[in-house]
Amino acid sequence: MDNAKSNANIEDRGAMPAKRLLRVLAGGSVAPPPVWLMRQAGRYLPEYRALRSKAKTFLDLCFSPDLAAEITLQPVRRFDLDAAILFSDILVVPYALGRRVGFVEGEGPKLDPIQPTDLGKLNGDGVCTRLAPVFETIRSVRRGLPASTALIGFAGAPWTVATYMIEGRSGNDFSASKSFALADAKNFAKLIEVLVEATSDYLTAQIDAGAEALQLFDSWAGVLGEPEFRRWVIEPTRSIVARVKKKNPDVPIIGFPRGAGMLYADYARETGVNALSLDPGVPLVLARALQARLPVQGNLDPQILVAGGDAMRRGVETILAALGEGPFVFNLGHGIVPETPPEHVAELVRIVRGAAAA
Amino acid sequence: MDNAKSNANIEDRGAMPAKRLLRVLAGGSVAPPPVWLMRQAGRYLPEYRALRSKAKTFLDLCFSPDLAAEITLQPVRRFDLDAAILFSDILVVPYALGRRVGFVEGEGPKLDPIQPTDLGKLNGDGVCTRLAPVFETIRSVRRGLPASTALIGFAGAPWTVATYMIEGRSGNDFSASKSFALADAKNFAKLIEVLVEATSDYLTAQIDAGAEALQLFDSWAGVLGEPEFRRWVIEPTRSIVARVKKKNPDVPIIGFPRGAGMLYADYARETGVNALSLDPGVPLVLARALQARLPVQGNLDPQILVAGGDAMRRGVETILAALGEGPFVFNLGHGIVPETPPEHVAELVRIVRGAAAA
Repeated sequence: MDNAKSNANIEDRGAMPAKRLLRVLAGGSVAPPPVWLMRQAGRYLPEYRALRSKAKTFLDLCFSPDLAAEITLQPVRRFDLDAAILFSDILVVPYALGRRVGFVEGEGPKLDPIQPTDLGKLNGDGVCTRLAPVFETIRSVRRGLPASTALIGFAGAPWTVATYMIEGRSGNDFSASKSFALADAKNFAKLIEVLVEATSDYLTAQIDAGAEALQLFDSWAGVLGEPEFRRWVIEPTRSIVARVKKKNPDVPIIGFPRGAGMLYADYARETGVNALSLDPGVPLVLARALQARLPVQGNLDPQILVAGGDAMRRGVETILAALGEGPFVFNLGHGIVPETPPEHVAELVRIVRGAAAA
Repeated sequence: MDNAKSNANIEDRGAMPAKRLLRVLAGGSVAPPPVWLMRQAGRYLPEYRALRSKAKTFLDLCFSPDLAAEITLQPVRRFDLDAAILFSDILVVPYALGRRVGFVEGEGPKLDPIQPTDLGKLNGDGVCTRLAPVFETIRSVRRGLPASTALIGFAGAPWTVATYMIEGRSGNDFSASKSFALADAKNFAKLIEVLVEATSDYLTAQIDAGAEALQLFDSWAGVLGEPEFRRWVIEPTRSIVARVKKKNPDVPIIGFPRGAGMLYADYARETGVNALSLDPGVPLVLARALQARLPVQGNLDPQILVAGGDAMRRGVETILAALGEGPFVFNLGHGIVPETPPEHVAELVRIVRGAAAA
């Protein structure tokens, strides 16, 4: 399946791509809008939990192509979504750079907090070799996907990945990361630069393996003040987008600077991303304004999916009424939470598809 | 000192108030701008730590007028700030409503998570009686304050206080609060209404005791999607502002919907607050746009105050250059963190005052 990529590229050129997601990311409008969900493969699905125990650690799971490919395909099969997203984790990049990365059940990631003296030991050259199993997963998923379903690759954006490397876990007030960036900006810039290079290489290799679109997750973009947001979110993102597009100008990149608030517009204008994933805090009237510039994706609060029922129907319909006519991908405003009843996801997809058909 | 309030009111009427902070909150511009800092009284000060041990629990400290007044005055004395802010906690309101509230050193607040069946037991009538020591603190602070220093009272806004009551602690993904609000909107609305009434009474009593301005802290406003933000942040805030202003139209209210992002403008337009406290994520060009409507306060990242040095000087000067000419109060974008070196605060105040003098 080494020609998966060239097939995808032929498909993308000239007229509108055939796959609904890719058509929207190319600027087209599709009714009903394509739908996929952040963290659609995961703990809320019983079939995921059944496979989870087959690997010893969470990273082992990410690096077992057969298991990871099957997990990637599970939600597509169950809900007939318009896209699969690679099952992996944003912390595979620090791991590939030579850092120790663990996951404690119920607590989240644990890393050895990086010190400035560790920076020289980060090994950028080995990244794509160490991440070879991920590319194998991508090739395997492409073989198993229905012809109409797009495959999304992804990575964490440098600021967010750096916070995990520095804090050693999901941050609270991100004081360690911010004080590193403020007190030792030179070394922090070095860390970000290592991440920009590794992430660009990693995403390019994902395209080579068959990823048809990419998403950059900057989950903690929202904790930065304006000058820091420009320097550590917008700049590195622009740099990654430019590097990836140099080799693959036609593969769309979705940017997700979660919590960027009023800085979403600058991010949209300055980074070069093709589309914008919106968190639930973005008001729909402003989402429409952003949509005038580029395709948008989002932005139902995952807790509304947990609640289901009328609240969910109203939430979905409000979003569709505001954004459904422009280039739009229906999604959550961030990842599915483990308590989500799978039936609510099925109902959500029915509402998104039914509303546009009505 | 029962006439403290009437004195304040006389002062506020007619021409511009004499106190620099109050002049800005009335829409005036003052050079250099007044400066105070959120959580300016607290753990980063050695003189606070010396007093902290004199009370058994944190709530005991809040309810000991002599200690709380002295703690309120400490930073004003040390740094000659333009305002004192009452030393207390937003969780005194749930306590006064009859909930158990504890604080675990290094972890934060612990409450018994409230159930819908507990709602009937909340006792709104006793709130101001139970909070009498707070009003005593306010009277005592007014006696001790320099004539040019304003005294700010405060409360938590209903959404934020409700999250602590429901989660039992500082929330992470706020799933308990959101699912309560979504699955049982009627009871959640009842809880919010109880908080609106108690908070309005509490703030009004703070004015009666001598508070000259008020701040409403909605620290977790940023986790809500747009419809929920309108319903649980804007609506209750508007209601509190209307109730408080009915009796005291001239006492300015500063609203702080932290993390509101693009919804800051709606909050400014719809709640009736006199001034807006901005978090560090608000870009300065948009802060200027908000300032065209009402006085703004903010918004240095507290981590920049921890870092100090050139980063702090640049941060302060950038903010002053953007906002210093309009009605503006210099402040942080949220509360001082315990690791802050007190000398950095002294230097910050010097920069704010010196920059405008230059």
